Amino acid sequence: MLKKQELAYWCIVKNRKLYLINHTLPLMTPAQVGGNSEQARHIGEYHKKPVYWLEATENYKEEDFYSQRELLNHDNTLFNLAGKATQLSHMLHTQAYCSACGARCELASTELAMVCQGCQAHHYPRLSPCVIVAVRNRDKILLAQHPRHKTGMYTVIAGFVEAGETLEQCVAREVEEETGITVKNIRYFGSQPWAFPSNLMMGFLADYDSGELKPDYEELSDAIWATRDQLPALAPEGTIARALINHSLSLMAER
Amino acid sequence: MLKKQELAYWCIVKNRKLYLINHTLPLMTPAQVGGNSEQARHIGEYHKKPVYWLEATENYKEEDFYSQRELLNHDNTLFNLAGKATQLSHMLHTQAYCSACGARCELASTELAMVCQGCQAHHYPRLSPCVIVAVRNRDKILLAQHPRHKTGMYTVIAGFVEAGETLEQCVAREVEEETGITVKNIRYFGSQPWAFPSNLMMGFLADYDSGELKPDYEELSDAIWATRDQLPALAPEGTIARALINHSLSLMAER
Ligand SMILES: NC(=O)c1ccc[n+]([C@@H]2O[C@H](COP(=O)([O-])OP(=O)(O)OC[C@H]3O[C@@H](n4cnc5c(N)ncnc54)[C@H](O)[C@@H]3O)[C@@H](O)[C@H]2O)c1
Ligand SMILES: NC(=O)c1ccc[n+]([C@@H]2O[C@H](COP(=O)([O-])OP(=O)(O)OC[C@H]3O[C@@H](n4cnc5c(N)ncnc54)[C@H](O)[C@@H]3O)[C@@H](O)[C@H]2O)c1
Repeated sequence: MLKKQELAYWCIVKNRKLYLINHTLPLMTPAQVGGNSEQARHIGEYHKKPVYWLEATENYKEEDFYSQRELLNHDNTLFNLAGKATQLSHMLHTQAYCSACGARCELASTELAMVCQGCQAHHYPRLSPCVIVAVRNRDKILLAQHPRHKTGMYTVIAGFVEAGETLEQCVAREVEEETGITVKNIRYFGSQPWAFPSNLMMGFLADYDSGELKPDYEELSDAIWATRDQLPALAPEGTIARALINHSLSLMAER
Repeated sequence: MLKKQELAYWCIVKNRKLYLINHTLPLMTPAQVGGNSEQARHIGEYHKKPVYWLEATENYKEEDFYSQRELLNHDNTLFNLAGKATQLSHMLHTQAYCSACGARCELASTELAMVCQGCQAHHYPRLSPCVIVAVRNRDKILLAQHPRHKTGMYTVIAGFVEAGETLEQCVAREVEEETGITVKNIRYFGSQPWAFPSNLMMGFLADYDSGELKPDYEELSDAIWATRDQLPALAPEGTIARALINHSLSLMAER
C-alpha cells in the first residue's frame, strides 16, 4: 500500500522517543527510509501528506531520538500525531498480553489495536482520562509545584478521572484532595491528547468557593495563590496547563 | 473497618448485574448482609451513608439481580455509584492478567486497582473516553438508529476517542464518518460515566456546516433529520443522549 516514491512524514519510534531531523519529523519517501519501512502504519495526514508510524530497527542511533516534547512549539497537529505514534509504540509493550486471559497479543492488521492470540479479544490503545483545572480567586490564580518536575515550575491542578464520576465531580474532588479548597462555576475549556504515556487531558476553569489553602504534601511540594505580577516559573507554552494559566491571567487583567 | 451495625447502601454484583430490592440498592448493615461482607470495599457516600461494593457469593439467586439501567430514573449519584461497582467487578474479570508481562493480577488492598503479582505494576479500572454529540440544523436535529438497539429507538452520534486527537476533533470525525456531514460550533455540554461496560461519555452540541446526509450502514441502520413535531422513539430519560436531545429541542423551540 505504501508508494515507494511518495513523500510522507515519519514517526520512527524507539523507547518512546522519536527520530527527528532538524528538530522535526523527517519528510521522506519509503524508499529513503528503507529497512522495515513496509511495516509502517498510516496514522494521519499533515500538510496533505500521509503520516506513518514505524518502530525503529537496531540500525538507528540512540542519539538521533528525542522526546515528543521537542515538538511542543510546532503546531498541535504535528505534536499530536507524534504523540499518537509514541502511544501506539507504548501499546506494543504495555499491552503485549491479554488482560482477560493472559495469552500473547499481536498488533491487528486491520486496525490500530492489539488482538489476543488466545481469545481473539481486541484491545484498543489505552487512554487515561484526566482533568486539569485553573482555579481563580479574583486577582489570584492557584498554582502547584510537583516533586516530579525537576525545574521547580508551577502549574495548575490535574488528576485522573475515577470510575463512576463525571468530569465535573473529578475537578471538584482533585482540587479538594490536593489543596483543601472547594470550587464553583466549573466550566469546560478544551482538551489535549498527552502521550506521557497515554493521558487525555480535559481542561476546566473554576472559581474559588471556600476553604483555606492546605497543600497535600504527599502529592505536591507547594501550592500558592499567585498574582499576575508575582508569577513563578510556569508550565511551558504548548501545554493545556499553560493555555489555562494564560487564559486565567487574561481574565484577571480584565477586572 | 466495617462497623457490623452501621447502615450502608450495598452494590452486590454478579455477572455485571446488581442485587436490587424494590428496584433500588438495599440499605443494610454488614451483619444483615452476612456471608463475605467483610470483603466489601467502600466506593462512595449516598445520603450521608457509606456505599459498598461486594461480589455476590453463590448463595444469591440469579433472579434477584438487575441491570444498572433499572436505576436510570433514580438520581445520578445512585446510578453512577452502582455503575462504579459493576465496573470494578468487570475489572476483576477483564484485568485479571497483567497486560505488560502476562502474570496474574489481584485486587490491591490499598486502592481500587489491580496489582500484578509478577512485575508489581498497578492497573487502574479501564475507562474508555467517548464523545456523544447532538447536531442541529435550524429546526432539525440529527438522529441515528443503531442495529444493536432492539427497540428501534433513535439517538445522537457517539464514538470512542482515538489516541492523538482532541475531543473536538473526535466529534467532527465521528459525525463525518457515520453520516457524511461536517459540523461547526462544537461546544461542550456535560459528561456521564457509562458503565456498559466502562465508558466515560463526554457530551457536545454542534451545528450543521456542510454535506449531504449519507448514513454509514456498517455502523447505523438509519440516520434522519427530525423536527420537533415528528420525533421517533428516543433514548431513555437519564442518559446523556436524551439530555442532549432535550436541550437541542428546547433550542429549536426558541427559534
Ligand atoms: N498536558 C498538560 O498540560 C499537563 C499538565 C499537568 C499534568 N499533566 C498530566 O496529568 C496527569 C495527572 O497529573 P497528576 O499530578 O495527578 O499525576 P501523577 O502522575 O502524580 O498521578 C497521581 C497518582 O494517580 C495514580 N494514577 C496513575 N495512573 C492512573 C490512572 N490511569 N488512573 C487512575 N489513577 C492513576 C497513581 O497512584 C499516581 O501516583 C499526569 O500524568 C501528567 O502527565 C498534563
Ligand atoms: N450514555 C449515553 O447516553 C450513550 C448514548 C449512546 C452511546 N453510548 C455509548 O457510546 C459508545 C460508543 O458508541 P458507538 O455507537 O460508537 O458504539 P459501538 O459499541 O458500536 O462501537 C463502535 C466500534 O468502536 C470500536 N471500539 C470498541 N471499543 C473501543 C475502544 N475502547 N476504543 C476505540 N474503539 C473501540 C469497535 O470496533 C466497535 O465496533 C457505546 O459503547 C455506547 O454504549 C452511550
